[in-house]
Amino acid sequence: MTSTDKAEKETGRIEAFSDGVFAIAITLLVIDLKVSPPSGSEGLVYKLLEEWPRFLAFLTSFATILILWVNHHNLFNHIVRSNTLFMFLNGSLLFCVTFVPFPTSLVAEYMGDTGETTAMVLYSGTMLAMAFAYNILWRYASHKHRLLAKSVTAGQVKSINRQYFVGPVFYGLAFILAFANVTASLILIISLAAFFAITASVSRES
Amino acid sequence: MTSTDKAEKETGRIEAFSDGVFAIAITLLVIDLKVSPPSGSEGLVYKLLEEWPRFLAFLTSFATILILWVNHHNLFNHIVRSNTLFMFLNGSLLFCVTFVPFPTSLVAEYMGDTGETTAMVLYSGTMLAMAFAYNILWRYASHKHRLLAKSVTAGQVKSINRQYFVGPVFYGLAFILAFANVTASLILIISLAAFFAITASVSRES
Amino acid sequence: MTSTDKAEKETGRIEAFSDGVFAIAITLLVIDLKVSPPSGSEGLVYKLLEEWPRFLAFLTSFATILILWVNHHNLFNHIVRSNTLFMFLNGSLLFCVTFVPFPTSLVAEYMGDTGETTAMVLYSGTMLAMAFAYNILWRYASHKHRLLAKSVTAGQVKSINRQYFVGPVFYGLAFILAFANVTASLILIISLAAFFAITASVSRES
Amino acid sequence: MTSTDKAEKETGRIEAFSDGVFAIAITLLVIDLKVSPPSGSEGLVYKLLEEWPRFLAFLTSFATILILWVNHHNLFNHIVRSNTLFMFLNGSLLFCVTFVPFPTSLVAEYMGDTGETTAMVLYSGTMLAMAFAYNILWRYASHKHRLLAKSVTAGQVKSINRQYFVGPVFYGLAFILAFANVTASLILIISLAAFFAITASVSRES
Repeated sequence: MTSTDKAEKETGRIEAFSDGVFAIAITLLVIDLKVSPPSGSEGLVYKLLEEWPRFLAFLTSFATILILWVNHHNLFNHIVRSNTLFMFLNGSLLFCVTFVPFPTSLVAEYMGDTGETTAMVLYSGTMLAMAFAYNILWRYASHKHRLLAKSVTAGQVKSINRQYFVGPVFYGLAFILAFANVTASLILIISLAAFFAITASVSRES
Repeated sequence: MTSTDKAEKETGRIEAFSDGVFAIAITLLVIDLKVSPPSGSEGLVYKLLEEWPRFLAFLTSFATILILWVNHHNLFNHIVRSNTLFMFLNGSLLFCVTFVPFPTSLVAEYMGDTGETTAMVLYSGTMLAMAFAYNILWRYASHKHRLLAKSVTAGQVKSINRQYFVGPVFYGLAFILAFANVTASLILIISLAAFFAITASVSRES
Repeated sequence: MTSTDKAEKETGRIEAFSDGVFAIAITLLVIDLKVSPPSGSEGLVYKLLEEWPRFLAFLTSFATILILWVNHHNLFNHIVRSNTLFMFLNGSLLFCVTFVPFPTSLVAEYMGDTGETTAMVLYSGTMLAMAFAYNILWRYASHKHRLLAKSVTAGQVKSINRQYFVGPVFYGLAFILAFANVTASLILIISLAAFFAITASVSRES
Repeated sequence: MTSTDKAEKETGRIEAFSDGVFAIAITLLVIDLKVSPPSGSEGLVYKLLEEWPRFLAFLTSFATILILWVNHHNLFNHIVRSNTLFMFLNGSLLFCVTFVPFPTSLVAEYMGDTGETTAMVLYSGTMLAMAFAYNILWRYASHKHRLLAKSVTAGQVKSINRQYFVGPVFYGLAFILAFANVTASLILIISLAAFFAITASVSRES
């Protein structure tokens, strides 16, 4: 960001509010990690192992929200202006973020049970909605350079457009998969998280 | 905001603290979304559908707090100075915001039950109190240009005065309606949220 | 604050972290407001009225934390430098702040029961500890002008010293009273909150 | 930090997000302090005393997270640049921080019970993971001065390297101790917290 961009920056409070929501949503996930109080019949190690879907769900959701935050952060390196509609579009993205702990806890609770398909459909559906919300936010901000810094080039916009296209496609696939095979859908979502983390890290490094 | 306004800005920490409270209140709403653990008798889809008042309440409260935050943000584009009384007036507004999850959970729990009138009266009453708190905050800050930036015109103050008049009137109506017809009161509150979101977006766009 | 003070300001992140803790502690209080699910035998109005100690405790703790935040804010208008010991002193103050929801919920739960004396002793004791933590923080920062802005006068330091003396004395009184008369202790704490709010507002206005 | 360093500072939002996570994790600890509702058979004092492991765990975790925050703060006085991989390394540190309330509650629940070894292993293991995450974060940032301010000297880097070496060694010791003697492991962790707090305060004072 050039110093001119910094001067015209008016998104400070939107970023602060969003940071707060991301930080709370990511920290609230831990509340769902629970183990029943001591009882004579079975040891704590056994109880913890039995709760593996909870830990897996915790880890996956943490990674996903972290990646979302990193993306949000990178996006706002380009966006320097704001208007009320943009705040609501950002709000609809945050809505998805705050909602994540709920399907996460459903997956944690129902994995391996009859309700697991429903839980996974809701979980992957939330991810899909989030991917759409990101695309809408970015398309609105970048349309005719509406809210972008002057220093952002057309090439950069195109490159982000391409990058953001991956989300809806693959989360859409995970959503469809969830109806047929819960495990496959979960593996796809975890792989996506890993993929995004790696490509994001590499692309900035170069 | 002109650069002179930025220089005299002394509300930074009030905005940061308020952002924190808004962000937490809006994220805490999800804690109330709960579904009973797996049991043989009924499926998860059925359980989720049965909980529709919870989801509706979650959505409405999220939208309301988001709109409040957008308004708060827009207000502090005009307000640049602060004093202790102003901090307490802002605090009484935040009090309403942190209280929202409680009547929300009451509505979610009691909708369709004998206690639904009481729950809705408390919910709409909280909204009404919030609308009053906003008006008092703004009137105090704008009285004789007390805490406003120099660049704010008398016309802008009048326009916001008019805009803010809508809240107490319609939330007052929703409050009265709640005693007679719970559904009508809820629909009015949802419509108000939609109305505020649309007008806010349009007015800034133009 | 003069512009020179702003330039040497290095407490930004301490304030941000503290704002976060205050904001969360004040918002978490609402979690303790609970009403049992619908049941045929008694109405929601009755249930809510029965829970009055919860609402009173919620209100008192909210007001107290808000006043603490306002004080914290005013203090950091004078403090511009920082060191690690100061961060830990600030941390011990935040410790008291995050602890408040616990004795609050004890008072809410045990008021009118045999355990009410213990609950009130813990509640007033927390307030007392908080008043001490404030005094230590301020004394450390202001000793030989250690961390203060250059523009702060010796008269201002003395005036704050005097003001801060009130806290330990009266919370100490409330603490002692709690052993003898729970209601009197609670009334004293509520009166103190009102007193601080009023004097703070008036002193800044003049 | 020199003014040149301030100008090139691009870690603002990472610090804000991290502050949020630290603040929430430290405040969430209080949720685990619970006492059963009034019952005729035993007094509140007795109930509170019985819950001493909860209070000890609360205190230890609070102190640990506070120290982590102070360290994070001091670290970012040296780090002024950022990239995506660095954000994920910081994220893995935050992962440990948000996880702390879970083993804390396990220790609180299982202390004095058969599961206490498992609980303590998980608790000390989390501390160990955190110490590793800190070292990786710092090594990555300081390697060939990658993300450091120009004003940071090679001597300062070495001194921090040495300081950070203490964590993995002693938390590793606590981890091993946990298998043999739960109490000894807990005492070591508490001593470490005290040691870090004291050395940190002294080193900055001089």
